[in-house]
Amino acid sequence: MNEALKQAKIAFEEGEIPVGAVIVSKNRIIARAYNQTEKLNDVTAHAEILAITAAENYLGAKYLVDCKLYVTLEPCPMCAGALYWSQICEVHYGASDPKRGFHQCNPHMLHPKTKVSSGLMEKQSEDLVLEFFKKLRE
Amino acid sequence: MNEALKQAKIAFEEGEIPVGAVIVSKNRIIARAYNQTEKLNDVTAHAEILAITAAENYLGAKYLVDCKLYVTLEPCPMCAGALYWSQICEVHYGASDPKRGFHQCNPHMLHPKTKVSSGLMEKQSEDLVLEFFKKLRE
Repeated sequence: MNEALKQAKIAFEEGEIPVGAVIVSKNRIIARAYNQTEKLNDVTAHAEILAITAAENYLGAKYLVDCKLYVTLEPCPMCAGALYWSQICEVHYGASDPKRGFHQCNPHMLHPKTKVSSGLMEKQSEDLVLEFFKKLRE
Repeated sequence: MNEALKQAKIAFEEGEIPVGAVIVSKNRIIARAYNQTEKLNDVTAHAEILAITAAENYLGAKYLVDCKLYVTLEPCPMCAGALYWSQICEVHYGASDPKRGFHQCNPHMLHPKTKVSSGLMEKQSEDLVLEFFKKLRE
């Protein structure tokens, strides 16, 4: 999650909502990504989507059954839907997103095989988002 | 929807689950796409996601508030989540997808501003998918 938080900090520096993600396979990071919706003018360019695409490209495979995602913020419904299709093994997120997190939409959106945990480096992940929006309002 | 169906037929010819989409802005088609999950080894490469990214790229804008999506099959939760973020004005889909359509997940996934309709060229859209899976099983 520390590596995901580093990605989120890059997003922060670049004026993007600071969310970072990494995907791990066999104890190695195979994809790192941060939210780039502003830079790419693309609402689909969330950290998770970019990380899934990068990991699948690296593996040359459509499914991430042996992989773990670490992401600083609870995935939104779009990203949860993508994670469903990927059949990823584990999803670990830092801070919850009570407004736009997938639990608000449907808590069973991920694949039945996917294990989920939350709260890892929660405070650092959340503080970064809060600081971003505080700066934006100033 | 006729143009979306043409895109779905290209997908069929290329061995992809046959779903096609177009996005219209001011009575002009600004994006055409078909499902490419196999070719790109990417579970996120649904017709709708590719069309959203292409339309936003064309417009140089993150939001599709003046746009209409025509897609042959009911969007899945991932695509509905992406459509939510895009704030697209209208979504018209052909065939319903009782297994993986977004209504199964949460019927209120789209943006409150988005108007939705279904059933346009429903039979042709559905038949193409059924024929694809029939051929796959043979």
